[in-house]
Amino acid sequence: MLKFSMYLRKQRLLTPGPTPLHPRALQAMMGADVHHRTDEFRTLYLAVLADLKEVLGTTHDVLILTASGTGAMEASVANCFSPNDRVIVCSAGKFGERWVELARAFGLDVLVLSAPYGDAVTPAALAAALAANPEVKGVFVQASESSTGSIHNVRAMGEIVRRTGALFIVDAITGIGTMPLDIHGWGLDIVIGGSQKAFMIPPGLAFLAVSNKAWTQMETARLPRYYFDLRRERKNAAKGESAWTPATSLILGLADVLRSIKTMGMEKLIANAQMLAEATRHACAALGLELFAPSHPGAAVTAIKAPRGMDSAVIVNEFRERFGSVIANGQGEMKGKIFRIAHLGYFDAVDLFGVLAQLEIILEILGVPVQRGAGVAAAEQVFIRQTAEAALAV
Amino acid sequence: MLKFSMYLRKQRLLTPGPTPLHPRALQAMMGADVHHRTDEFRTLYLAVLADLKEVLGTTHDVLILTASGTGAMEASVANCFSPNDRVIVCSAGKFGERWVELARAFGLDVLVLSAPYGDAVTPAALAAALAANPEVKGVFVQASESSTGSIHNVRAMGEIVRRTGALFIVDAITGIGTMPLDIHGWGLDIVIGGSQKAFMIPPGLAFLAVSNKAWTQMETARLPRYYFDLRRERKNAAKGESAWTPATSLILGLADVLRSIKTMGMEKLIANAQMLAEATRHACAALGLELFAPSHPGAAVTAIKAPRGMDSAVIVNEFRERFGSVIANGQGEMKGKIFRIAHLGYFDAVDLFGVLAQLEIILEILGVPVQRGAGVAAAEQVFIRQTAEAALAV
Repeated sequence: MLKFSMYLRKQRLLTPGPTPLHPRALQAMMGADVHHRTDEFRTLYLAVLADLKEVLGTTHDVLILTASGTGAMEASVANCFSPNDRVIVCSAGKFGERWVELARAFGLDVLVLSAPYGDAVTPAALAAALAANPEVKGVFVQASESSTGSIHNVRAMGEIVRRTGALFIVDAITGIGTMPLDIHGWGLDIVIGGSQKAFMIPPGLAFLAVSNKAWTQMETARLPRYYFDLRRERKNAAKGESAWTPATSLILGLADVLRSIKTMGMEKLIANAQMLAEATRHACAALGLELFAPSHPGAAVTAIKAPRGMDSAVIVNEFRERFGSVIANGQGEMKGKIFRIAHLGYFDAVDLFGVLAQLEIILEILGVPVQRGAGVAAAEQVFIRQTAEAALAV
Repeated sequence: MLKFSMYLRKQRLLTPGPTPLHPRALQAMMGADVHHRTDEFRTLYLAVLADLKEVLGTTHDVLILTASGTGAMEASVANCFSPNDRVIVCSAGKFGERWVELARAFGLDVLVLSAPYGDAVTPAALAAALAANPEVKGVFVQASESSTGSIHNVRAMGEIVRRTGALFIVDAITGIGTMPLDIHGWGLDIVIGGSQKAFMIPPGLAFLAVSNKAWTQMETARLPRYYFDLRRERKNAAKGESAWTPATSLILGLADVLRSIKTMGMEKLIANAQMLAEATRHACAALGLELFAPSHPGAAVTAIKAPRGMDSAVIVNEFRERFGSVIANGQGEMKGKIFRIAHLGYFDAVDLFGVLAQLEIILEILGVPVQRGAGVAAAEQVFIRQTAEAALAV
């Protein structure tokens, strides 16, 4: 049905995951009448695995699970550790807390290094904790903590962890496609991604890039696993199959998107998100809005504080009711305090201009003093400047 | 494939036809494995014809042809007239000229009442011509002349023509859904529409609403017709069939859209286009751009003059190359002089804000002095005011 309040109202998905869907990939998903134990599918699956490896820029084994990103997080815990293993979680938001819950659910002995929401755990704090706890078997972190919009310095952290016996396990679910990640070079032992992020297709697939150090630790790890058994998955992947029935329609969509990303270059997809994030930060300044995570801003999503005295749900609700746009509220303890504008995946500058115009109208209607057009103008300026710089760089 | 120049670039269709497609209707079109000589299809087709009649707000017979709008224009000529019949064409643009070419191709004796591009033929001029030529059998006009963005006063014209023996034949291809049309009340004998306009589906279907006066004249009309034989089409339509094989996928999409338009109300779809057109005119003023048809502006499309000394193709090309947006150049003798921003059908305010931000960037890059954000701000202002007024009117 047409969405209509007073005027026509298109539905726009503007969240940091699920992200807007790529129409060509959706079309490819219509070809899902394929059986997953056929040569036709094996050929496709091998190509997808190879393309994913290329797009992630890694020599590590890359696996696909039919699960959400949390499933791959669980797989990294269940496959690499034994009961009571001591691990460190670097937590600076809701997804950091998920690592803590997950590791504890599996009976690990969790040392939490936490930073306040909007901030990041420092490499120095991690180095100190590792020095004080030499028995640590694993370090968990978010490359991009999308609940707050901040990022961790996984490069510096990786260089610290690689000098220890611990595995460095990185939730890069919103990091992939929004920041450079040198998986081998930086010592990232497990890197986790999800289909509904920069990969522009619906939720249902999770990805892992697994280092030799991780495979070795798996050999002696005793936590129970079955559906998420990565060694079984690797064996099957070598034959072009998944261990269990895979989400075939999503694999078809992913195959299409990966070909596109290869053609374009992952670094350009990252540059796109970073341009959008920078334009958003300038627009916020022009509109007198305060950023929530100004010290370590990522390019997956920008978290913005609601104006003083206002519940951010009011803004989120105005986006939905007045315009049909779905933007993200804060999560965890930030619910009601911030709202988040996403940049990862299938977002372009015109999307952002539209989001900012909506925001200007919403603020004005809510009685927040803003200069109409000022946010859009600031974003236009960033776009023009970055485009000119990119042209010079060619 | 992902479109990418320096940054991600979504393809956006922003022309006055084909117009942006409604996603739900596109989904409905996937059900096209239906045979057109089955009870299943007859039930659907009868519902579509009834809904189309309701949406057009007419008691006249409504027919669907598998053809572009031009096919329905031809049908109106071929079915209602005999060789050498004298007719009047009110022409104020490229589509007026199409009436002239078509009527002459069928051997009619055409009296052309023309107004300059951007202007409109006046009811007074038509009244004078009819008084001087009492033998005239038909008057042809565009409700909305989308080559220039201007509209004709079909209400006043209809009241003049209905007092004569002539048929009043209105190309409302971009008029339907952008302006009120009281088909019976205003004496519009044939009203023509097309699927790829306010109906939000791809091209391939044309519609006609046919008055009793027109059916009567058809009985003695001797021009040759076969595929476009409206009397044959009417006989079949009564049984829930089309005379020839119909474009079934488009009928399925149309069925979906018509249900939506019925729920929303055609008057709201019109109000939406009119709000967008007004916002565009204000934005142009704020950006120092001159409207091409300021005296009779329609809500299907707004034609804007290129800045002095600039070919409008440069602007159209920038939209496409820089942003992936397809906007319309001028047509006929206006090619290169104007560009056109469309409003009809599946366009919402956020689309317009995005178009205007693109336009601001393009003008700045081309060296035209503009204040960044000023056009978007002017459009936001119209949206806020109209929304408030609409809320008061509820």
